[in-house]
Amino acid sequence: MTGFADMWAELAGIGLVDGGGYRRYAFGPAESECRAWFRREASARGLDVRSDGNGNEVAWWPAFGTGGVVTGSHLDSVPDGGAFDGPLGVVSGFAAIDLLRLRSVRPARPIGVAVFAEEEGARFGVACLGSRLLTGALPADRASGLVDADGVSLPEALAAADIQPALGPSDLLGEPVAFVELHIEQGRALADLDAPVGVASAIWPHGRWRLDFTGEANHAGTTRLVDRHDPMLTYAEAVLAARKRARLLGALATFGRVEVDPGGVNAIPSAVHAWLDARAPDQETLDQLIAQLTTHFTARASRDGTGVAVMPESVSPLVDFAGPATDRVRKVLPDAPLLPTGAGHDAGVLAAAGIPTAMLFVRNPSGVSHAPAEFATAEDCLAGIRALADVLEDFACR
Amino acid sequence: MTGFADMWAELAGIGLVDGGGYRRYAFGPAESECRAWFRREASARGLDVRSDGNGNEVAWWPAFGTGGVVTGSHLDSVPDGGAFDGPLGVVSGFAAIDLLRLRSVRPARPIGVAVFAEEEGARFGVACLGSRLLTGALPADRASGLVDADGVSLPEALAAADIQPALGPSDLLGEPVAFVELHIEQGRALADLDAPVGVASAIWPHGRWRLDFTGEANHAGTTRLVDRHDPMLTYAEAVLAARKRARLLGALATFGRVEVDPGGVNAIPSAVHAWLDARAPDQETLDQLIAQLTTHFTARASRDGTGVAVMPESVSPLVDFAGPATDRVRKVLPDAPLLPTGAGHDAGVLAAAGIPTAMLFVRNPSGVSHAPAEFATAEDCLAGIRALADVLEDFACR
Repeated sequence: MTGFADMWAELAGIGLVDGGGYRRYAFGPAESECRAWFRREASARGLDVRSDGNGNEVAWWPAFGTGGVVTGSHLDSVPDGGAFDGPLGVVSGFAAIDLLRLRSVRPARPIGVAVFAEEEGARFGVACLGSRLLTGALPADRASGLVDADGVSLPEALAAADIQPALGPSDLLGEPVAFVELHIEQGRALADLDAPVGVASAIWPHGRWRLDFTGEANHAGTTRLVDRHDPMLTYAEAVLAARKRARLLGALATFGRVEVDPGGVNAIPSAVHAWLDARAPDQETLDQLIAQLTTHFTARASRDGTGVAVMPESVSPLVDFAGPATDRVRKVLPDAPLLPTGAGHDAGVLAAAGIPTAMLFVRNPSGVSHAPAEFATAEDCLAGIRALADVLEDFACR
Repeated sequence: MTGFADMWAELAGIGLVDGGGYRRYAFGPAESECRAWFRREASARGLDVRSDGNGNEVAWWPAFGTGGVVTGSHLDSVPDGGAFDGPLGVVSGFAAIDLLRLRSVRPARPIGVAVFAEEEGARFGVACLGSRLLTGALPADRASGLVDADGVSLPEALAAADIQPALGPSDLLGEPVAFVELHIEQGRALADLDAPVGVASAIWPHGRWRLDFTGEANHAGTTRLVDRHDPMLTYAEAVLAARKRARLLGALATFGRVEVDPGGVNAIPSAVHAWLDARAPDQETLDQLIAQLTTHFTARASRDGTGVAVMPESVSPLVDFAGPATDRVRKVLPDAPLLPTGAGHDAGVLAAAGIPTAMLFVRNPSGVSHAPAEFATAEDCLAGIRALADVLEDFACR
C-alpha cells in the first residue's frame, strides 16, 4: 500500500511513449499493466475486488454490498494522451480511502473504487464502452461486433487480457446511492477562478460521426482533373465547413482521425474515412449542426462527383448533473465552483442510467487535455483527494 | 516455360486483396513471390539471371554482355493497384524473347529482361528507387537511411528478402545500346486514337513533396475554437488550394496519403503529415505551382496558428524521349502514335542517366491506372508483345 505520490510514480512509466504522451489502449499491454497495479493496490488495502464480463472492475471497502457509494474513473488513454485523464480519479479513490482510514472513519455503506473499460473509445471507437455495457445503454450484440483497427473483436480482446467475456448489464456497482467521479479539468475555468477543485454542472451533448467519402481510385499522374472523382477534395471542404458552422452555432467540431484508401502518394483515393467529433451546449444546437453539415457535405459531394455517408458512432445527450447527489456534494464543498464541460465521462453514462451522480474537477493550469501538457500540481491533487474523501465520508456515513 | 496467358494467370493471384487490387510492396512477401516467378520463368528459358545489391534483376538471352538491349519494368504495385502497371512489361519481355526464338532470330547483342526495385515508391517513399540507385541518381547514403512505415530500413528489407544489400551504382545493365520499356497506358489517349500500341514522347516533370503541418494537441471537447492550433484546418485548406492552383496552371496536384498525430477521434491533432503529388507539362509550370503553394500554405498556417514545412521527397525533371532510340522505334513501328505521359517510369530515370531510351504503351480502354479497373485486352497485350519483339530484334540484330 502506497501513498498518492508513490502510486503516481508507479503508473508514470506505463505506456509512456516518445514525446511524453501515453498509449494505454483498453485491454492492451499497457492498460493491463495499469489494471495489475490496480489489483495490487486494492489487495494491499485488503479491498474486495469484483469484475464483470465487460472489463469493468471495482475494489470495495470493506466488501461488496448494495447501496454503497462508488468513485473511480478509467485507466485507458487516447493516443499520446496525458497522465491525468482517468488515472487521477482511480488513484484519488484509493488515496481518499487511505485518508478516511487515517481519520478512523467507519463507513456505514461500502465504498467502491471503480475502473471502467475503454472510456476513451480509442480502441473500439465507442467512448465509455464499459459503463455503457454495464448500464445497458449499449446493447451487448452491438458491442460483440466491434473490432479494433487490427480486426480483433471486443470479446477476443477481453479474452486476450484474461477477462472472461460476458457483455451486457451487470450488478457490479450494487445499486449505489451515489457515484462520484473525480477528474482532471480539461479547460482553464478553475485556473481563471483561482479554485483548486470544482463541481460539474452538466456535460454538453456530444458525439462522434463516421464519414465515408467515396470516389474512384486512379493514377495521380495521368488522370485529368476534370475526369477525377477525388473524395479527398470533399473531405477537405468538409473540414472547413464543419469548423465554420460550429463557430457560427457556438458549438465545437473536430477532425482528429482520417484514413485514406488506398493511401498511395501517387493514387487518387478511392475513399476517405474521417471521424467528426461534435459538441454543443444543448441538444438542439448539436442536432442543427449535424443536420446542416450533412446537407452541406452531400451537396458538395454531388458537385465533386463523389459520395458521402454520415453515420453516428456514439452520441450522448446532455447530462444535467443537477440533482440530489450534486446538491449534497455542493453542501460538503461550498467553496467549489460549478462548471459545465464538453467532455464525456462514465459519470455521464451512469447519470443517464438514473444513478445519482456527481463529478469533481481538479484544476489544470495548462487547460490542455488529451496531450502530454495535461497537468495538475501535487498540491491541487491532494486538495482533490481531501474533497473526494469528504464527499465519500458524507455519503457513506450519514 | 509458359506463354503469355499462362504467365499472366500465374501472377494473377499473387498479392491480390479484397476489392480486386494488388498489394505487392518492394521486398515484401507478394513481390518476393513475383520475383521467384521471374526467376523460374528465366530459368525455364535458360536465361542468365544477374542481380545487384539494390534489388534490381536482369534475365539475359543468351547471357550477360555489354552493349546489349534491355527491356523490362517492375513487379511492385501501389496499394490496391492494378494488375498491369509493371508486370505487363516484364511478362512481355519474356514473351517477346519466346517470339524471337519462334522466328529463329539469333541476336547479335544480348537481350535483357529487367525487374527494377520499388518503382512505385509505395514502401520507402522514393519512386524508381532501384533504377535511381543503379544509375547513381540517388546517393547510396541517402537510400540507406530510408525506412518504411514499420521502421524497417532499406538494407534490412533487402536482407529479409534474401538480397545481399550493396546500395549504389551497378553495371547490371552492361552499358546497353538501348533500354525499351513496355507499359500499360495510364490514360485514354490510345483508346481515343483507336491504336493498340503507342510510343512515348516525354514524361512530364513531376514529384512528391512531404508536407508537415504542425499545431497543438488538445481535447476536442473542451478546447474553445479560438484557443486551437489545429493543423487539420491548414491541411484541408491546402488540399483545396492545390487543386485550384493546379487547375489554373494546367498542372496536376493530388493528395493520396495523409497521417495524423496522435490520430484520436477526440483529440485535436498535434500534426498532420501529407504528401503532395504534383506534375506539369514543363518544369517552369511545376516550379511555379510549388512556389505558389508554398507561399499560400505558409500564409494560411500563420493565420491558423500552425506551422508548415514543405520538403521535396523525389522530384523528376522533364524526360524528353526524343533521340536515337525513339527514332529507331518509330521506324520499326510507323503506325504507333506518339504521346506524352504524366507518370514517372524507370525508363525516365535511365534516359536521364544518358542511356538511349524509348517506351511503348499498350492501350487501356478504362484509362484507369493504380486501381483494379486498370485493364488491357489480351489482343492488345499480344500486339504489344509483337511490337516489342520487332523493336528488340531491330536493336539486337541490326
